[in-house]
Amino acid sequence: MSLQKPENDLLLRAARGERTERTPVWLMRQAGRILPEYRAVRASLSGFKELVETPEKAAEVTIQPVDLLGVDAAIIFSDILVIPEAMGLPYEMVEKRGPLFRDTVRDERDFDRIRTAKAEDLGYVYEAIRLTLDGLGGRVPLIGFAGAPFTILCYMTEGSGSKTFSTARKFIVQRPDLAHRLMDMITESTIVYLRAQIDAGAHLVQVFDSWAGILSPADYRTFCIPYLKRICDALNGTVPVTLFSKGAHYSYADLAALNCHTVGVDWNTPPEAARQAVGPNRTLQGNLDPAALYGNGKEIVKATTDMLRAFGGHRHIANLGHGVYPDTSPEHVKIFIDTVKSFRHE
Amino acid sequence: MSLQKPENDLLLRAARGERTERTPVWLMRQAGRILPEYRAVRASLSGFKELVETPEKAAEVTIQPVDLLGVDAAIIFSDILVIPEAMGLPYEMVEKRGPLFRDTVRDERDFDRIRTAKAEDLGYVYEAIRLTLDGLGGRVPLIGFAGAPFTILCYMTEGSGSKTFSTARKFIVQRPDLAHRLMDMITESTIVYLRAQIDAGAHLVQVFDSWAGILSPADYRTFCIPYLKRICDALNGTVPVTLFSKGAHYSYADLAALNCHTVGVDWNTPPEAARQAVGPNRTLQGNLDPAALYGNGKEIVKATTDMLRAFGGHRHIANLGHGVYPDTSPEHVKIFIDTVKSFRHE
Repeated sequence: MSLQKPENDLLLRAARGERTERTPVWLMRQAGRILPEYRAVRASLSGFKELVETPEKAAEVTIQPVDLLGVDAAIIFSDILVIPEAMGLPYEMVEKRGPLFRDTVRDERDFDRIRTAKAEDLGYVYEAIRLTLDGLGGRVPLIGFAGAPFTILCYMTEGSGSKTFSTARKFIVQRPDLAHRLMDMITESTIVYLRAQIDAGAHLVQVFDSWAGILSPADYRTFCIPYLKRICDALNGTVPVTLFSKGAHYSYADLAALNCHTVGVDWNTPPEAARQAVGPNRTLQGNLDPAALYGNGKEIVKATTDMLRAFGGHRHIANLGHGVYPDTSPEHVKIFIDTVKSFRHE
Repeated sequence: MSLQKPENDLLLRAARGERTERTPVWLMRQAGRILPEYRAVRASLSGFKELVETPEKAAEVTIQPVDLLGVDAAIIFSDILVIPEAMGLPYEMVEKRGPLFRDTVRDERDFDRIRTAKAEDLGYVYEAIRLTLDGLGGRVPLIGFAGAPFTILCYMTEGSGSKTFSTARKFIVQRPDLAHRLMDMITESTIVYLRAQIDAGAHLVQVFDSWAGILSPADYRTFCIPYLKRICDALNGTVPVTLFSKGAHYSYADLAALNCHTVGVDWNTPPEAARQAVGPNRTLQGNLDPAALYGNGKEIVKATTDMLRAFGGHRHIANLGHGVYPDTSPEHVKIFIDTVKSFRHE
């Protein structure tokens, strides 16, 4: 457990609902291809996975956006798919195509090859966290993360990315028994993993349900919310928890009812609608359209300011509504960050 | 203009807000890969585009679901990308990859190669409509369609499908002048095209904004609604118009304010929320989760019945919340259709 309180603890205070002098800001995928410095590290290695699995390098790229962009938090450089791999399904990251699994889980027999992950399976992540904390020297908080069980199930059944994840969805509809069994194993693995990240020093954890938007509200309630609840309850009282269910605009109220601190908002959801759905007792995180950073300086300042006003000055963590697009200029990202940092609510 | 009123005019009456004995039903992508009879026709040709461009064959596969599944409407077999092609950007349909354009529109010079489409550019579609009407013999209405201007712009700028359409989005943010110019040309082309479909006999037209969900509410209001308005106003008084903006859950009220009859609802939006947003004076179309058809007969009956109850008995056209998945069993599709047809609201 992290004993060290970071100098800049705006993110943690905003997550806990405390008043802050200004709105904290970071970006999903801030440690990544937008930075030439990241691309240089990446080019020195054999591929994306080597970077994820090499703690010194992962720590280096995790710290880059703190130094180069001035964000209020670092997020550990890793991949949500380390969990299926730790459960027994290795994957490759294929350039321009995305993740590819050799094996998938689609019937009973496929359970023979998987198991609930143990904390020690992912030692390289905790080591990267420890090295990052050393490098940060207490400047800003470090965010740990994991994929939500449903999003992980999507990859474990489909075996790759997909527009519709119809294989995953067929599995859930036709074998709800196996789907719940798999969700259970992923959930247990994720709890162990997030606890170990917290033990290593993560100050806050975020759970990414990247594919939430492909489910109907009824299925989201059946197959996702109970497992997110278990994760939130298991982490209760350790660090603040952020839930980000992209596209599940109907789920904000259900997410806010869980034992979490912050609900992520995608850029398709008006801030007012998100606030109405979650009520006053949760922090909201988001939600500038990532495409807004393609605009010029003046446009970025205006879009950012409009967003800050729409969320209001309390219980808000500024971010994009999704990961920053890789071809975004770092200068434009800085305009976004600086606008948040200099803005004061009237 | 079609003078012939179909025997089964449930769809048209429901669209116009008249009371109907029962809820009409059809499926997006009903003329397609779910039917072995479609696959047989498709296999006899060189590819998807030959099928689109051969009126006799397009008419044949358009009629198949009426005969084989018992739907209450046919929808002309075609492709939304015939419009960019008629505007001067030819495309190929690459197996398992989707559409691919050789040229795109990204700067001023690219406008040299495009023009507003003329009705006669797409004569094969109107011919397919006439042949379909002959084959249907007045049994059910025939739906014409087009892509919404924004969705067409996405393909014309990106040049292919994409998860984020970030090139299209960058174009809109960085060159709003050119984006509006292109939207204007697409809109004029679409109006000409839909009018010609109506002249050929289409009884209702649907405008598909398949990529609406990637825009922020503000951008949707700026770049989509005004052009959809122009289309609706141009068609005013001819046939009922359906607008389906997939993923734009925040846009239902804006769409309902246009001169349209029906608003399509995706499966992520609860029917009650859609009704609340559009008010009582528009028909809703949708929205069974396409994955629900992977279930067994009992599950399909329950899901369909639940959906029918949620929409209520008035101003509803039953459909899926998106196109039927290609690997869906036709028997399961029939269970869905038969459930709608035999259901009576209490």
